[in-house]
Amino acid sequence: MTGPKRDTSGDKRVSAAAPLLVALDSSARGPLHRQIYEGVRAGIIAGRFAAGMRLPSTRVLATELGVARNTVVLAFDQLRAEGYLNARGSAGTRVRALLPDSLISVNATRRGARAARAAATAPATDTRRASASLSPRWAQLVARVPDIGSLRDLAPAPFALGMPAIDAFPSALWARITTRRWRSGAVFLGHAATSGDESLRNAIADYVTSARGVRCTSDQILIVSGAQQALDLAARVLVEPGDAVWMEDPGYPGARAALVGAGARVIPVPVDEEGMSVEWGERLAPRARLAYVTPSHQFPLGTIMSASRRLALLDWARRVGGWVLEDDYDSEFRYAGRPIPCLQGLDTERGGAAHVLYIGTFSKTLAPALRLGYIIVPDELVDAFRAARAISGGHSPTLDQGVLADFIGEGHYVRHVRRVRALCAERQQALLAYAASEIGDALELAPDAAGLHMVGWLPSRASDEKATSAAAREGVNVIPLSRYSAVAPRRGALLLGYAAFDEGEIREGARRLARALGASP
Amino acid sequence: MTGPKRDTSGDKRVSAAAPLLVALDSSARGPLHRQIYEGVRAGIIAGRFAAGMRLPSTRVLATELGVARNTVVLAFDQLRAEGYLNARGSAGTRVRALLPDSLISVNATRRGARAARAAATAPATDTRRASASLSPRWAQLVARVPDIGSLRDLAPAPFALGMPAIDAFPSALWARITTRRWRSGAVFLGHAATSGDESLRNAIADYVTSARGVRCTSDQILIVSGAQQALDLAARVLVEPGDAVWMEDPGYPGARAALVGAGARVIPVPVDEEGMSVEWGERLAPRARLAYVTPSHQFPLGTIMSASRRLALLDWARRVGGWVLEDDYDSEFRYAGRPIPCLQGLDTERGGAAHVLYIGTFSKTLAPALRLGYIIVPDELVDAFRAARAISGGHSPTLDQGVLADFIGEGHYVRHVRRVRALCAERQQALLAYAASEIGDALELAPDAAGLHMVGWLPSRASDEKATSAAAREGVNVIPLSRYSAVAPRRGALLLGYAAFDEGEIREGARRLARALGASP
Repeated sequence: MTGPKRDTSGDKRVSAAAPLLVALDSSARGPLHRQIYEGVRAGIIAGRFAAGMRLPSTRVLATELGVARNTVVLAFDQLRAEGYLNARGSAGTRVRALLPDSLISVNATRRGARAARAAATAPATDTRRASASLSPRWAQLVARVPDIGSLRDLAPAPFALGMPAIDAFPSALWARITTRRWRSGAVFLGHAATSGDESLRNAIADYVTSARGVRCTSDQILIVSGAQQALDLAARVLVEPGDAVWMEDPGYPGARAALVGAGARVIPVPVDEEGMSVEWGERLAPRARLAYVTPSHQFPLGTIMSASRRLALLDWARRVGGWVLEDDYDSEFRYAGRPIPCLQGLDTERGGAAHVLYIGTFSKTLAPALRLGYIIVPDELVDAFRAARAISGGHSPTLDQGVLADFIGEGHYVRHVRRVRALCAERQQALLAYAASEIGDALELAPDAAGLHMVGWLPSRASDEKATSAAAREGVNVIPLSRYSAVAPRRGALLLGYAAFDEGEIREGARRLARALGASP
Repeated sequence: MTGPKRDTSGDKRVSAAAPLLVALDSSARGPLHRQIYEGVRAGIIAGRFAAGMRLPSTRVLATELGVARNTVVLAFDQLRAEGYLNARGSAGTRVRALLPDSLISVNATRRGARAARAAATAPATDTRRASASLSPRWAQLVARVPDIGSLRDLAPAPFALGMPAIDAFPSALWARITTRRWRSGAVFLGHAATSGDESLRNAIADYVTSARGVRCTSDQILIVSGAQQALDLAARVLVEPGDAVWMEDPGYPGARAALVGAGARVIPVPVDEEGMSVEWGERLAPRARLAYVTPSHQFPLGTIMSASRRLALLDWARRVGGWVLEDDYDSEFRYAGRPIPCLQGLDTERGGAAHVLYIGTFSKTLAPALRLGYIIVPDELVDAFRAARAISGGHSPTLDQGVLADFIGEGHYVRHVRRVRALCAERQQALLAYAASEIGDALELAPDAAGLHMVGWLPSRASDEKATSAAAREGVNVIPLSRYSAVAPRRGALLLGYAAFDEGEIREGARRLARALGASP
């Protein structure tokens, strides 16, 4: 921390007399002006310096404390800026008469002050006739989609879902690129384009075109705060309250929440070995507004949508004028077999109006903490999406986008993806091996050719909620499959994330899970 | 303003031949890349460089102008970033065919250009039986709130609004803190808490408590992507489609857009010399769901809401159970007089149920590019807001929040605010002085005790839209007051941002504006 040079003409410091406002501690770290600031502030908060009390002039105080006058001036300026002292004037410096209540309380510590504030703001008996309330629809939403404020399991321990290989994140390189960007002097700090950094959109366009078979221009791309925001924008732009929407079941809760938030009538459509059942969708809601799918790697079952099912879905969309929301959330993690071209590419290849919106994210290859994802929309929706993006917060942070653009443009991204893919493949192998040796038949785990989590099937009629509680008691984090189903699943299963954990953690997690499932020898 | 070193091999500068795109003025202040940027941009705005026109390569232009190639690259990059030039590609650099409205063509008014563009993108004849469409409500929104995709004026030239003193942004310090955070190894890269970084929320709680008289715990604070997201979340959580809401008129378009986006029935409530007229609000919509106000410094008129008006507003809220959305967007920029405690503090001080939601932002004191703001909500709304925040994109980027927390915690923020406040006060003085000397009576400008923009009143019956077009032709960026009014304003005025511009730019802007207004001698 910087500060003005300490005045070493120390012999003038107050010794015998009582401290004048504050006592300076010459052995304390940090600048003197901060000590003065804190001392006066503490005195005001504690009530020792009453409202209206006049303080010594900076000249007098500086002399008494044996410091440079500017030191005192700095401290007083900050106290003024924060409202503890009144403005400079001929009346001298006084403690302000009208302080926010929270600053006035004898013997209050910082935490105590916070608690005191909380107590002070607790609603008293309400004698008013009417009470302000949140929108009934939103109140229902909060009630119907529990855990909405914590859509992810936050604890970074086995076998938490949604946690990619964050230990492999290239922090040093990321920091270097960040510094370079700041130093270039070319960072535009004003409001930027809603759709996002153009070089980043170009880089993404190049990437998805070659890696996923997407067909688009960079103008169709919007940079968003992770896949979640993409889902939210799509729901807001496309869904009218009351519209039916097809939702994979079991399916991703973040998508469900976004759709419910937009007032959709969510129709759970079962997933079979070929992916979401279009036949069932048409039976339940033939003219749904949109269908939400994760065709590359169904979340959470892991199914890859077959070629014929893909065509059937696109046919449906064209016949009824419905939208398809393709969430390609972990497509880089393919461990076996060839990558399957995405729905968006199949759809645009056929020509005519486009029906697919494509969602991608950097949360799984890089880190969720960055909040960087993208959505690629048909041309005719670009204006509407820009409007939604603008209304919802403007644009993603400029520098973060620029760093990512450089990271991709300089070839680091491709190399990094290769590395984390190999790492996650190893970790899947470790989980398979330790599950077999530690847990055995109590959990049926099959290799998954893609993704960052696995499904462990329980013996028939076993409750996955009970197994989850047992696991939690052993300190293991799993999610029951039933939590992602609107309809009761045929068989209980546990979802296990493995990407963020090394072999040792995976082994330990497997052992604990074995105990929880009663499978230990 | 920093920039690459000037290439002093000046003898290569174009002299006899007509300028190639731009003429460089070696005696002008500021970096060369900025001259090039401004010259090309002016040419595009004026229509001299037509849409689709191909520009010389950076290499050729650099040789012709006698500057380093990187100088030209910098200028072109900024032009691309702002949408004037298309992306880099094998087709060379061209003036974009589809420019944001504000940039299109000689003699086109803003509205005319938009209509033209809308016509150009109208869907071709649709031979399918049914067509996928966006939600009718959203389609209406996009039609009713024009400029929604560009809620801000992006071009960083006088007198653009919404642009704070970004030249004073402490980039080196910010970069240092960022690097330190990355190196600490303590950055959690998984999904983080929805409400935001706890140390940042604590720092904000301390700050608003002492500086603004807010009364809250840090649990009532959510970190959001700028004030815009705060407005959007509030609209989504509190407003049911069809609800009436009071909107200051003239008022801030971002707030209006968020409210319209949530399906509100926006009631424009006039602003008088005491602020928004509660009396008019009650006349027009006595049981409105909420009232949106900017009481510290009305946007755009600058009025400070009087004490009695504040109490009247809070009384209304309590009587009918309405909410008050207090947008304290530029409260740090007070140049004269004492800071007035905010509505939230007044409301909570009285006890009983809380009715005020408080919005703050770092976009004006730091930079819009960071996308960091906050909303402070009554306890009973915390869960609902967390739900909304989670659905809309999760949380703000983790590292960005941490850097800001450190920046505040180490005392840099308070110092920085003091500095930019003084800088902006100077710039306001410069604008007042040059407006008086260059423009004179053609524009009535009064000192404003707060904020980052001023209102310049035109002679009665002068059209502010016409004046705006004239200004654009002179390369000056102003916004007509009428654009922020739902009802016809009594008198035309131009809104002038001055915070981001140095004295030279302000002087030049004033001269050009004088020419536009026909005020030049």
